[in-house]
Amino acid sequence: MNARGEDNPIRVGVLGAQGLMGAQVVKAAGEAPDTTVVATVDAGDDLARLTGAGAEVVVDFTHPDAVMGNLEWAVANGLHAVVGTTGFTDERLAQVRSWLSAKPEVGVLIAPNFALGAVLAMRFAQQAARFYDSVEVIELHHNRKADAPSGTAAHTARLISQARREAGRKPGADATTSELDGARGARVDDVHVHSVRLPGLVAHEEILFGQEGETLTIRHDSMDRTSFMPGVLLGVREVLKRPGLTVGLENVLDL
Amino acid sequence: MNARGEDNPIRVGVLGAQGLMGAQVVKAAGEAPDTTVVATVDAGDDLARLTGAGAEVVVDFTHPDAVMGNLEWAVANGLHAVVGTTGFTDERLAQVRSWLSAKPEVGVLIAPNFALGAVLAMRFAQQAARFYDSVEVIELHHNRKADAPSGTAAHTARLISQARREAGRKPGADATTSELDGARGARVDDVHVHSVRLPGLVAHEEILFGQEGETLTIRHDSMDRTSFMPGVLLGVREVLKRPGLTVGLENVLDL
Amino acid sequence: MNARGEDNPIRVGVLGAQGLMGAQVVKAAGEAPDTTVVATVDAGDDLARLTGAGAEVVVDFTHPDAVMGNLEWAVANGLHAVVGTTGFTDERLAQVRSWLSAKPEVGVLIAPNFALGAVLAMRFAQQAARFYDSVEVIELHHNRKADAPSGTAAHTARLISQARREAGRKPGADATTSELDGARGARVDDVHVHSVRLPGLVAHEEILFGQEGETLTIRHDSMDRTSFMPGVLLGVREVLKRPGLTVGLENVLDL
Amino acid sequence: MNARGEDNPIRVGVLGAQGLMGAQVVKAAGEAPDTTVVATVDAGDDLARLTGAGAEVVVDFTHPDAVMGNLEWAVANGLHAVVGTTGFTDERLAQVRSWLSAKPEVGVLIAPNFALGAVLAMRFAQQAARFYDSVEVIELHHNRKADAPSGTAAHTARLISQARREAGRKPGADATTSELDGARGARVDDVHVHSVRLPGLVAHEEILFGQEGETLTIRHDSMDRTSFMPGVLLGVREVLKRPGLTVGLENVLDL
Repeated sequence: MNARGEDNPIRVGVLGAQGLMGAQVVKAAGEAPDTTVVATVDAGDDLARLTGAGAEVVVDFTHPDAVMGNLEWAVANGLHAVVGTTGFTDERLAQVRSWLSAKPEVGVLIAPNFALGAVLAMRFAQQAARFYDSVEVIELHHNRKADAPSGTAAHTARLISQARREAGRKPGADATTSELDGARGARVDDVHVHSVRLPGLVAHEEILFGQEGETLTIRHDSMDRTSFMPGVLLGVREVLKRPGLTVGLENVLDL
Repeated sequence: MNARGEDNPIRVGVLGAQGLMGAQVVKAAGEAPDTTVVATVDAGDDLARLTGAGAEVVVDFTHPDAVMGNLEWAVANGLHAVVGTTGFTDERLAQVRSWLSAKPEVGVLIAPNFALGAVLAMRFAQQAARFYDSVEVIELHHNRKADAPSGTAAHTARLISQARREAGRKPGADATTSELDGARGARVDDVHVHSVRLPGLVAHEEILFGQEGETLTIRHDSMDRTSFMPGVLLGVREVLKRPGLTVGLENVLDL
Repeated sequence: MNARGEDNPIRVGVLGAQGLMGAQVVKAAGEAPDTTVVATVDAGDDLARLTGAGAEVVVDFTHPDAVMGNLEWAVANGLHAVVGTTGFTDERLAQVRSWLSAKPEVGVLIAPNFALGAVLAMRFAQQAARFYDSVEVIELHHNRKADAPSGTAAHTARLISQARREAGRKPGADATTSELDGARGARVDDVHVHSVRLPGLVAHEEILFGQEGETLTIRHDSMDRTSFMPGVLLGVREVLKRPGLTVGLENVLDL
Repeated sequence: MNARGEDNPIRVGVLGAQGLMGAQVVKAAGEAPDTTVVATVDAGDDLARLTGAGAEVVVDFTHPDAVMGNLEWAVANGLHAVVGTTGFTDERLAQVRSWLSAKPEVGVLIAPNFALGAVLAMRFAQQAARFYDSVEVIELHHNRKADAPSGTAAHTARLISQARREAGRKPGADATTSELDGARGARVDDVHVHSVRLPGLVAHEEILFGQEGETLTIRHDSMDRTSFMPGVLLGVREVLKRPGLTVGLENVLDL
């Protein structure tokens, strides 16, 4: 998957290393054969530790208040960056692009979701949407979740709707004439989305496509945040080869 | 499962033998080792053919306009009956009970649903409902279905709600505070029911129970009406041992 | 579900209170409205603390070396017991029965599995097995599991096989004439069992029944040991009403 | 999805029009808004009816003995072809390519499987295989099937194994040290494949990927052969734009 190996591992610096996600990045990048952690930085620490230790890539799971300063410094110093911190508006992305225009060899990957399975499920759903008129989404979460549908399911539904429209397809008809209020779910764009809430569940999404005589189902089950690490490490490997700004893990998967 | 066998098969008469269901009953009862079809009757035929042929049990998949006449005759002549014809009101059931009071040795089984798996799924759902606060129902059907939720799913939800109440349980809380209209499904009694409609689906029901750390799922998938025959044959075997009126296949399953 | 409530909660003593399971029992019994923890005991502590605190029921998640002494003392002192400790042979069960014969008012419940969903799934599988010739079991676990199939799946298969046999049914035929070694799974008694191992899975069991035109599926998903607590609390409530020895949680469910 | 519409539908000729599949092609191509059936041909009919009627594309679901003659004639006469007939060896494919070299503007699509969902499921499995060490396949069919695993599942497993190898991944380890013979399924290349056989099932395939904390599942459920028609019609539309030989529906999906 990449040309770097145990003899010459990718030198990673972790920002927010004591945070929930940062600590997992330190562990995961320390254990993978082709990466090594050369520096960790938390609030109050001097960023120069990263260059001092010879870091090539920084991973940032910090805070919206801190991440822009970190990124400006990293790009200026020629370090690639993989960013999971939230809060990126169009203005912020434009700012990052402007910094990168002065350092065209540097790569930055900003992703709202590093769960590989979730990203693949969404991408497969987009691909399948070109071939099916009829699709529905069921998302299932623990009963402590406040919003329904989940942000991921709503995002998936919008991607499906857009892909279907771009393929010149119209939403498949259904014959429902008598509906108990809510039975057919919420409509996100023109996709029906159903939200199940039960203790014992964690975070699950199922996308069902159907046409005469067959159905195709894509399902993602997420148990905990350890599932983000393979996506973060993939980002670390790929950002080295991709100068400029990339938004979304799906764009480094080469699907 | 029963004392009758190839040497002494149960002698079955089929009413409505040329109908969709009746024809399948003729085929199924002809093939089973412990039943044999001795007479078939359709509109215009003389019911006396049944007694003439020595039928013990009649199976009636006819029409609401014909079934009461058939039943009155069968009970009066000492024949047991298994009935899948629809349209039984409380008044009609009372009438059948009155006929049976004069023939206490005769058994009549009237069932709205002979799909064994569907009946078992409902019964298991009722049993599980005593132990779980939290449960939701997902039913999935082809996109030509007019009503949502399906009658079976609504019936299942009401049975669950009743069983939960009788066990002294309250519906489990969920934390939903922000809901896109319909996302959390329809409420049947106090059970959330979600209806999916897609071409390629046939008729499917899933009942999900959850509590901290685990979920229990019961699912029934129905492909076509051949699935009713094992339930009909079971009814034929059981009605011989159960004098009086029995309503619902679940009441001969001894669960 | 029981006559005891907040005004008069069941007084529970926990043996092995600092163990993994014991600590959860302390927490769960402390939080439930109809139970209260009046004493905790660990290795080296005096059992008399239990009677001193007025315990009615003891819960024992200790060690095979300790449990028999605990039980002898509890029965002798008129305390009911719910036991999750392993290692009960027929000899040990006979010994417990002998102690109970001198104290006929005392109840003891010994159960190898307190996961309510798993116990219900097994019981439903037994019930359904009476009506289906054809059934297979799929169990799915994380890839750190050493044995295949899992003990639970093997136990389920044996229960199914026995229930099917008692109902006079033979295993359904299949037409497989060309099989790549292992494709059709392991045979436990006469039931096919398939074992899937993947990181990301926890502990899952699926029992599939099929006959012409329909399938019935029962699935249990277990995420972690918190799922045992509702079963333990149910045991505490039920043991009060059931003098003598009961083996297996399924026998207090009144299904 | 294509520039042709009701005003100018694609003119289709159907070979083997009275066969099981051919009859469905006639019906489906007659109903779609952008295709029209201009000629049907069966054994004994003159192929010149196709050119006489102005066919642009022929669809061939005939017989291995007939298909090569049909194709030679079609290519020579400048007609595109979509072929579902079986029996294409490397020699036959080379022969078709040689005919096409003399008519470079003609397109021929030969596909062993026109079930869109099955083709998509296989393609998604290949794509996901690049990101997961651990994957297993479960295929479920009716109990009249003679071979286990199914050809589709074995093919899927081989595609996964190849994609994983090409991505530099090794099969994920599992800890199984004690296995009841067959429990862990068949090994196809290095992928575990499990085959379930039950009456009531039709044809189903499930591909499960897992890594720490998450699983990704792709499932295809096939009910009957009507599900092939959208794939055939897609082939008809795409073959017009793709001169030369294309083997496999997946190669016209532009995934």
